[in-house]
Amino acid sequence: MSGLLNFNNMNKTFRRKRLSIDEYAEGILSGDRIILSRAITLVESRLESDNELAEQVIKKILPNTGNCLRLGITGVPGVGKSTFIESFGKYLTGIGKKIAVLTIDPSSQRTQGSILGDKTRMEELANDPNAYVRPSASGNTLGGVNSKTRETLLLCEASGYDVVIIETVGVGQSETTVKGIVDFFLLLMLSGAGDELQGIKRGIMEMADAIAINKADGDNINRSEMAKREYQNALHMFPPTESGWVPKVLTCSAVEKKGMEKIWHLMLRYEEEMRKSGFFQRNRQQQNLEWMMQTIQYYLDLSFFNHPEIKSTMPELKKEVTEGLTPAIVAAKELLHRYKK
Amino acid sequence: MSGLLNFNNMNKTFRRKRLSIDEYAEGILSGDRIILSRAITLVESRLESDNELAEQVIKKILPNTGNCLRLGITGVPGVGKSTFIESFGKYLTGIGKKIAVLTIDPSSQRTQGSILGDKTRMEELANDPNAYVRPSASGNTLGGVNSKTRETLLLCEASGYDVVIIETVGVGQSETTVKGIVDFFLLLMLSGAGDELQGIKRGIMEMADAIAINKADGDNINRSEMAKREYQNALHMFPPTESGWVPKVLTCSAVEKKGMEKIWHLMLRYEEEMRKSGFFQRNRQQQNLEWMMQTIQYYLDLSFFNHPEIKSTMPELKKEVTEGLTPAIVAAKELLHRYKK
Repeated sequence: MSGLLNFNNMNKTFRRKRLSIDEYAEGILSGDRIILSRAITLVESRLESDNELAEQVIKKILPNTGNCLRLGITGVPGVGKSTFIESFGKYLTGIGKKIAVLTIDPSSQRTQGSILGDKTRMEELANDPNAYVRPSASGNTLGGVNSKTRETLLLCEASGYDVVIIETVGVGQSETTVKGIVDFFLLLMLSGAGDELQGIKRGIMEMADAIAINKADGDNINRSEMAKREYQNALHMFPPTESGWVPKVLTCSAVEKKGMEKIWHLMLRYEEEMRKSGFFQRNRQQQNLEWMMQTIQYYLDLSFFNHPEIKSTMPELKKEVTEGLTPAIVAAKELLHRYKK
Repeated sequence: MSGLLNFNNMNKTFRRKRLSIDEYAEGILSGDRIILSRAITLVESRLESDNELAEQVIKKILPNTGNCLRLGITGVPGVGKSTFIESFGKYLTGIGKKIAVLTIDPSSQRTQGSILGDKTRMEELANDPNAYVRPSASGNTLGGVNSKTRETLLLCEASGYDVVIIETVGVGQSETTVKGIVDFFLLLMLSGAGDELQGIKRGIMEMADAIAINKADGDNINRSEMAKREYQNALHMFPPTESGWVPKVLTCSAVEKKGMEKIWHLMLRYEEEMRKSGFFQRNRQQQNLEWMMQTIQYYLDLSFFNHPEIKSTMPELKKEVTEGLTPAIVAAKELLHRYKK
């Protein structure tokens, strides 16, 4: 009896934890959501052996990636981001698209309000057979958001999704990371550049390929149209983008499901123009290279900052540097010296 | 005869290359420009032994730093940056200030037109006994701009300058670096957001604490005033700055030496407000910490990318990653593996 139990446990553990590279790859390519989820868990694992397996899986499915449109959507809490993604996602599945939504877990980023952990979030979309919603653990590790989200994106692509949406909260460093992953970056805003903008990080606006003014409904329609014109004027004062694309401003109402088609058509127009100019492909190649460089950086840092000697010396030196008692360069050299020993 | 020659040469080399830590420190603190220049050369040297000496000098003079206003000034070629800095610098020395100007050598940054090497640049200012003009070699090294410019800034501060201006060309990565060094960041622009903006990098506008529309003279006055209003409107649409400061837009004419006082008073107002709120000091402390982190990063990278095994493997792997044949993560791990061996 106990032998049977053990066997069952082992089997269960085996089934839940590990498949072979080929089993993962075949499952992903056939669109098996359970295997996709397990592969993502493998990618996000902190175990080196899991990561190594994940990398082999990614290597295997790589030829089947690259065929989806990669979208970044950001906006501060309160802008109606979840509702927007639900409306936009439902619009896309309604026109026959398969979509994946990756949300970057903001729990480590000190925001007001619970964003994840809210089980009812995007419920309608999560139950749609043509949509796959997955919170992507960002964790606390240096650069962690980055490589994990990219790998997850590739797994979703290979699994046959047409559009992958990566959602961030617009308050941290993750937007720069996401900008380096996606083809198109949408910023959600509200009319009235007042309190609701307090949380947004400077620099994000210049990343946007489009701004959508949400909650353009009811009494708010006129104000939203005004905000649209104001943002449009503001964007014209920005230096041109590298791609040559002039960022657009639109209005929408996620609650009333209005404006979704307009936004989608804008994205399609962007893709068409950028493919024609060659920027689309060039940008992805550049992103690949940056991913490599950032991964190297991440592991070099990890090895340094996790070194016991560094961990024990760092706090005191940080204090001295902050207070201006030791030049930063001297403190840095001291740490590097201890690390090399 | 040959013995005498040798002795002379040795002596010359000794005198030109090295002083003791105390001799450097005393020379710098007494405002000796020749010793200041030699100390900067030491900082910029690629010899480890020079750098070590330089760090000891900086450690020594550190208590005498921090008493100047640190300004970053940027703008694309053609905006009249040199003329502006000359006019602004002459205005400052005219009201009794001692100023240092550090220009970041853009030679490695692929810009049109020679910027350095132009010997007549800022000639009037360079001959002013209360001004010190120094091109800061950025070189090609990763992150090199960064630590060298910061250290040079500290040397100038200790040498009694009231204002240090760091000039960049507005087209590369150096603005982000400079933003992390200075207290106040001024962006020079022209009226008409046309061709002259082609070169400027997106994101720079959101870094600016003020924009000065240059060449507001002659037929251009009306257009400049209009541009001022347009930029002012655009800046109002930006998210608030971390400091709470609302960036201002001014007009000026560097050629006619107009608007310099207005700009200086704005900077003084900024300093006063930011000191009152505590942001000024907090920002400098944060910058010190970042300097430490960036220095660590720089040396970790240096050790990695200069490794013979990495140098020989990198090009092929880069190609594979760019072409989508190898996942970036796999290439990165491969390189890290070779590095560890």
